Amino acid sequence: MSDNGILSPAWAGTGAGPLLDDTAWVRAMLDVEVALARAQAKLGVIPDSAVAAIAAAAVPGRIDPVALADGVHATANPVVALVGELTGAVRAIDRDAAEYVHRGSTSQDIIDSAAMLLCRRVLTRVETDLGRTATALARLADVHRRTPMAARTLTQHAVPTTFGVKAATWLHGVLDGLDRLRRVRDAGLPASLGGAAGTLAAYDEYAAMAGAGPDATSLSDVFAAELGLAAPLLPWHGVRTPYADVAAVLCVVSGVLGKFAADVLVLSRTEIAEVAEPAAAGRGASSAMPQKRNPVLATMIATAARQVPPAALVLYQSMVAEDERSSGAWHAEWQPLRDGLRMVAGAARNAADLADGLTVDPARMRANLAMTGGAVVSERLSARLAPLLGKQSSKKALTAALARHGGSPGDLAEALAALVPDGPSVEDLRNWLDPAGYTGAADRIVDRALRRHRETA
Amino acid sequence: MSDNGILSPAWAGTGAGPLLDDTAWVRAMLDVEVALARAQAKLGVIPDSAVAAIAAAAVPGRIDPVALADGVHATANPVVALVGELTGAVRAIDRDAAEYVHRGSTSQDIIDSAAMLLCRRVLTRVETDLGRTATALARLADVHRRTPMAARTLTQHAVPTTFGVKAATWLHGVLDGLDRLRRVRDAGLPASLGGAAGTLAAYDEYAAMAGAGPDATSLSDVFAAELGLAAPLLPWHGVRTPYADVAAVLCVVSGVLGKFAADVLVLSRTEIAEVAEPAAAGRGASSAMPQKRNPVLATMIATAARQVPPAALVLYQSMVAEDERSSGAWHAEWQPLRDGLRMVAGAARNAADLADGLTVDPARMRANLAMTGGAVVSERLSARLAPLLGKQSSKKALTAALARHGGSPGDLAEALAALVPDGPSVEDLRNWLDPAGYTGAADRIVDRALRRHRETA
Amino acid sequence: MSDNGILSPAWAGTGAGPLLDDTAWVRAMLDVEVALARAQAKLGVIPDSAVAAIAAAAVPGRIDPVALADGVHATANPVVALVGELTGAVRAIDRDAAEYVHRGSTSQDIIDSAAMLLCRRVLTRVETDLGRTATALARLADVHRRTPMAARTLTQHAVPTTFGVKAATWLHGVLDGLDRLRRVRDAGLPASLGGAAGTLAAYDEYAAMAGAGPDATSLSDVFAAELGLAAPLLPWHGVRTPYADVAAVLCVVSGVLGKFAADVLVLSRTEIAEVAEPAAAGRGASSAMPQKRNPVLATMIATAARQVPPAALVLYQSMVAEDERSSGAWHAEWQPLRDGLRMVAGAARNAADLADGLTVDPARMRANLAMTGGAVVSERLSARLAPLLGKQSSKKALTAALARHGGSPGDLAEALAALVPDGPSVEDLRNWLDPAGYTGAADRIVDRALRRHRETA
Amino acid sequence: MSDNGILSPAWAGTGAGPLLDDTAWVRAMLDVEVALARAQAKLGVIPDSAVAAIAAAAVPGRIDPVALADGVHATANPVVALVGELTGAVRAIDRDAAEYVHRGSTSQDIIDSAAMLLCRRVLTRVETDLGRTATALARLADVHRRTPMAARTLTQHAVPTTFGVKAATWLHGVLDGLDRLRRVRDAGLPASLGGAAGTLAAYDEYAAMAGAGPDATSLSDVFAAELGLAAPLLPWHGVRTPYADVAAVLCVVSGVLGKFAADVLVLSRTEIAEVAEPAAAGRGASSAMPQKRNPVLATMIATAARQVPPAALVLYQSMVAEDERSSGAWHAEWQPLRDGLRMVAGAARNAADLADGLTVDPARMRANLAMTGGAVVSERLSARLAPLLGKQSSKKALTAALARHGGSPGDLAEALAALVPDGPSVEDLRNWLDPAGYTGAADRIVDRALRRHRETA
Repeated sequence: MSDNGILSPAWAGTGAGPLLDDTAWVRAMLDVEVALARAQAKLGVIPDSAVAAIAAAAVPGRIDPVALADGVHATANPVVALVGELTGAVRAIDRDAAEYVHRGSTSQDIIDSAAMLLCRRVLTRVETDLGRTATALARLADVHRRTPMAARTLTQHAVPTTFGVKAATWLHGVLDGLDRLRRVRDAGLPASLGGAAGTLAAYDEYAAMAGAGPDATSLSDVFAAELGLAAPLLPWHGVRTPYADVAAVLCVVSGVLGKFAADVLVLSRTEIAEVAEPAAAGRGASSAMPQKRNPVLATMIATAARQVPPAALVLYQSMVAEDERSSGAWHAEWQPLRDGLRMVAGAARNAADLADGLTVDPARMRANLAMTGGAVVSERLSARLAPLLGKQSSKKALTAALARHGGSPGDLAEALAALVPDGPSVEDLRNWLDPAGYTGAADRIVDRALRRHRETA
Repeated sequence: MSDNGILSPAWAGTGAGPLLDDTAWVRAMLDVEVALARAQAKLGVIPDSAVAAIAAAAVPGRIDPVALADGVHATANPVVALVGELTGAVRAIDRDAAEYVHRGSTSQDIIDSAAMLLCRRVLTRVETDLGRTATALARLADVHRRTPMAARTLTQHAVPTTFGVKAATWLHGVLDGLDRLRRVRDAGLPASLGGAAGTLAAYDEYAAMAGAGPDATSLSDVFAAELGLAAPLLPWHGVRTPYADVAAVLCVVSGVLGKFAADVLVLSRTEIAEVAEPAAAGRGASSAMPQKRNPVLATMIATAARQVPPAALVLYQSMVAEDERSSGAWHAEWQPLRDGLRMVAGAARNAADLADGLTVDPARMRANLAMTGGAVVSERLSARLAPLLGKQSSKKALTAALARHGGSPGDLAEALAALVPDGPSVEDLRNWLDPAGYTGAADRIVDRALRRHRETA
Repeated sequence: MSDNGILSPAWAGTGAGPLLDDTAWVRAMLDVEVALARAQAKLGVIPDSAVAAIAAAAVPGRIDPVALADGVHATANPVVALVGELTGAVRAIDRDAAEYVHRGSTSQDIIDSAAMLLCRRVLTRVETDLGRTATALARLADVHRRTPMAARTLTQHAVPTTFGVKAATWLHGVLDGLDRLRRVRDAGLPASLGGAAGTLAAYDEYAAMAGAGPDATSLSDVFAAELGLAAPLLPWHGVRTPYADVAAVLCVVSGVLGKFAADVLVLSRTEIAEVAEPAAAGRGASSAMPQKRNPVLATMIATAARQVPPAALVLYQSMVAEDERSSGAWHAEWQPLRDGLRMVAGAARNAADLADGLTVDPARMRANLAMTGGAVVSERLSARLAPLLGKQSSKKALTAALARHGGSPGDLAEALAALVPDGPSVEDLRNWLDPAGYTGAADRIVDRALRRHRETA
Repeated sequence: MSDNGILSPAWAGTGAGPLLDDTAWVRAMLDVEVALARAQAKLGVIPDSAVAAIAAAAVPGRIDPVALADGVHATANPVVALVGELTGAVRAIDRDAAEYVHRGSTSQDIIDSAAMLLCRRVLTRVETDLGRTATALARLADVHRRTPMAARTLTQHAVPTTFGVKAATWLHGVLDGLDRLRRVRDAGLPASLGGAAGTLAAYDEYAAMAGAGPDATSLSDVFAAELGLAAPLLPWHGVRTPYADVAAVLCVVSGVLGKFAADVLVLSRTEIAEVAEPAAAGRGASSAMPQKRNPVLATMIATAARQVPPAALVLYQSMVAEDERSSGAWHAEWQPLRDGLRMVAGAARNAADLADGLTVDPARMRANLAMTGGAVVSERLSARLAPLLGKQSSKKALTAALARHGGSPGDLAEALAALVPDGPSVEDLRNWLDPAGYTGAADRIVDRALRRHRETA
């Protein structure tokens, strides 16, 4: 059965699909079986000769995915069938090696270790795309640090800001995501080794039978090293923090990218049109309306951001798993993990493309900023006039003046000057009415974000 | 990219996969395109001759799924590319017919109608499996209407019940699910026809250009009839109740099946062992422990029940969709709908197999019921003794007697008789201490559930 | 501890708070205890004399809420303590009556029945507010059936529509919500009567001890009638469909109102300004920016719509409850039910106020519609020109003409006429370029929605 | 309106209620207003004299919570009304000071900073309770490191483990929670200072008007120091990572405690009875069944664990917030944050009590372990016999022997010895059949967990 992403704009066409399809999972599980054999051979638990046969047989092409799915139905996980298929393949290569496949092991060690492997691979790709996104946003923040635009709160123009601050805010979020991703990717993805119920007993038993000195605890370290994963302090069949930590990363990354996309969607509305998505042949086309250029990258990021937290919720709720292995909670982790990783990988790729190619229209920003006349700086005028007229009177005067002269800063300045005989000059008032002059700490905010970016990179 | 369900015990191996894979969706979307052409031909909007070519070309094998996925990335939905592929295939058959493909239509009409088609198909299969489950549970309820067992609340033995009541309760839930499923399947799945933004303008325009009399509103009725779906009162691009209604069905069905599975999991625990899953070669096998027979059907149902509500949540949240078509909410509906339907279809099939083959052990039920001595009927003893001794004294006496003689109903009866000189006879007390005599309205409850079952079937 | 809604814009100040606060729940639970006593007296299980005392004592003021909360901590539910408090209050009135309090009953019967009572009360208020919302939207749909505006898809102008269609779409959604609400309110809210573990044993036992003829099944009917709730077919301790049905109503209602709010938020953006919220003193004020009038009603509805589905999710997931009463799932239903009902009640009230007072600006709609020149009717032009020029050529011509003459329909008409010598007249082209002439089935759509509204009311 | 937790077993009676009720939030918001005034006075923006009056007036008792709720309805947040109330209270003390209240500030700065304050306070209490839980679990792990019991997977006995490993696993989870909590509590809770739209413009403006040198960026540092919160690098109105980080902590802590509770619930089942909750007068009482002692602490933790992730989901989804302040997403954060913190604080307190007083029954563990005869060590027997008999034959022999002699290790040993003439001695077989001898790395696992505990404390 195929799933090419035709129902998943969140990741279709971004290359995230094959990273996590059945073949990728089979390959990862086989990698784990090989790593286990290698580790056991190093410790003298199985003969070196068996490793070569196992490694040669451990190729996805030798495993029938339909047999695995049937096996899932029979045993509730794919490993029993996988081990059967792999053992058959090994036997065909080296009869004696077959008995060393999956020695002392259990389904959960294979699946959890494979999941961690895939997390590492996918998160590393996401890291690259977040890095590219961050670099593009840093450039936008720097270039537009003094490009004034309207800040909007609850959909309404509030006060001026700059597009540099906007981009710096996006950047800050992306760096938050990058930071949390790296922390988990680098230290939070342990190999899983516990045996049937987390005591490592069969691994120890086979070690003892083989007269191998080192205990299974060091097996765990050697095995993790083979996989390039963190060595687990304890078997974690019943302690699902690694999945939860990945869930948190998925939520944070999809959240910060979703914020970026949400703003792009607003700013590219026909009536606002302050930014536009990068043009590309065919992109954003409509089946019915030839003139349309839809903000599809932002849409696809937004749709990912809606779906990732519910997938992560399943991972979080699966922490509550009774017994040494639960009947249902463990099994609920795999598909949401795949979905979550895929959507985040797709969103990060799309975000990098979006940030890289975002078109910015400073003229339109200025035009929009002028729409409300002086109202967009009324916070400033209030601050300035209140000491002169009193809070209530200044508010009343301001409201009246805006109603009459809003839209023409010149007229407004004169009207206000007339209201406060010994007050600010028309000149002062004109300055105060210039949105570009009321962007607060915009420059410092951009500088801080850029500094953080440099330190992160 | 393949997804054979190796990460989805919720539906792997149940036949639910191919019902909703890419091919199934492409076929459904093509069915919709053909139905649209047929309806337009009937109303004289397009020539009859075009229909044959469109129908002939509308075969999944003619559509490249990878092209669709690329199209999703370019336009955020698969229809633009699908129409391109289909048009090419039609042109190869009948050059003139090509221009009548997807006439006046829009992506959302195609996807939403296809989704409703698939909902109908899948829900009909689920109906069959729920029916089979209900029949099996009705039989269990009837056969075991007087098989006493411990009712458990907050994990502790509470009072006696019968396994018939237990099965009747499961049955009642399954009939609730069946009822809600049918209501939505029969009346709640409308075809979608709105055109670019829900005004039907292009459909009308083409009708006018063709000199066709009937307006596009009747197109909507004819189109729905072609698909065997309900005729929509209005275009529903912006009114997502049909998806929400399906979400509710998915949640209710997975919930009632999850309840069944949760009880089976408890009752088949090694220490309880009152029921067991149907045996089948290889089913429930463990990769490490040859003796184990895991309750895999119940586990697979339970894992579905954990994941369906979060998928439904996405559907519910997607109702909040700005504009005539939203940028992200609409796109978030497809994959969770697929996932939810698949998991519910898998769970219903597994539940039918589980109910059909469930092994019940009345002897073990009796043995467990006896574990707490008379404590399991202490509610009854309290009721009986309180009028004689007063509430406080009877409670104290009961507690003391249980502590000393709990486990032996005979001794307990005599001890209690001694405590209340002019009270109940030892004979009476023995009767009261018989758990099988304190099962309340068990019979009537079973009867009512069976009557409902007969009326539903 | 107080919760006045200061963290809950979703319902603060709408009157929904006191409907569901601790006092309301205590009152509902007391109503249930009184109804049980009345039903038992009617059937001769307890003396009539006891009822008067129980009814007199069953007043929230006699129950200490802090004692209840402590009782919750001791027993995981408030009923054990409530019964203690109530029994004390009854004893103070009539010593003999005290023993008839809560006779044969169990915590779950009280809480579930009380919850259903509150659902009925709150849903009835929601019904009224949805009715008011529908009436206001029907008026808007009728008045503005020919007020043209831009339909927007993926944030971009797509084709023309009318504000009447927009309002009709909102109305259609609200009527969907109303329909589902009524179905559940009228038939889906059963009283709960099961006794300790769903067998009704203690109710039967006390009936037998009193020599009362009728069995406890009829107690269930009489009890339900006392409460004005549906009579349950079976005890439903383990069949949580009633909560799930309410969950579905909460999701659908918050979804359709959230859609309305989402559109209002877009349309009231400073740059779009096609609608505005009803003005009221202080409403929408900002602490920092005197000029702002924030769309607070829509914001408060939107925030409810974000939170209701996650609350409903908990209800759905609580269907999976092991045993005759689960340890955790049942207990997870109460607060999400309260939250969900409160937020929906708040949202419905706010929606009624919003719909009632919505200000519509047809001039601004026209101005926005003109922003893209003829592009907003390019779908129509494509349909008209393709037969004359061929699909590719007409698309190319159209794109070129729009690029040069977009914004001036007159120039555009002439340019297009020049491109197609024997084609449409300038007159025809002008007509085609009039957005108001390309609103499709707007009138019929409005009519259908209004008819449905009349039939529903 | 009161909420004493009568619907919230997750936290009722644990002291978590008042930490987060309306009074606590009002106090925190007032603390923030005072801190802002202090910081501005330090930088010369407002006169020192104003601070005393503001601090004196900033007392929850001076604020009418109903006025705040009305204010929420008018403005969608409580700060506009709070500032009004506070200003009135200040004016009553010192007329001149009133104008310095909330100077240059905005609602979001107050609410977000107050939320972070409350997070810090609550998480610190949670830390203490997790510490107490960890200490109790460490003791259990140490004492029971060699207390054998059955490990269960998919509800069935799998292989032996020890209760020490079980407790070590719980401990490992609790330490994971503690670790993540501390990281966020110590570095992840920034004060919020951004002004109307995240540019700090009004703070700067007032600073300029007061001739105060230091810029508003240092205001942010001084303000944070006053509150004892982390200094924000940037205004974070649009970067909701702090809430997301708290969400992750809530999920992880509730997850690891939920795992502990889930196991206690299984192990305290009537039929299993290996552990029991600490006894306390009235705790675990049933309203109907005098004999019951319900595992209420575990139930209350379990119910929290079901509800926390959905609350966290709302926080995660609220990261996607359009504009400089969104219309709905921001407003959706407050109540779920309160709920999530309260439930986690309740769960941690209950978990500490549960761990502290947990009763362990090693004899029952041994008895349960013996239930399946030698089957619980069949993994070991397979490993030992396979080299002698071959995999298939040994499996068959084992299955046959277990069927005949399961339950009596002595008979089983002899039967197996007979099957393998030159194989293991009866002595060896008896050893292999002793569950206590097949607990793998139990000791090392416990040691590692205890070492981690010592290093964490």
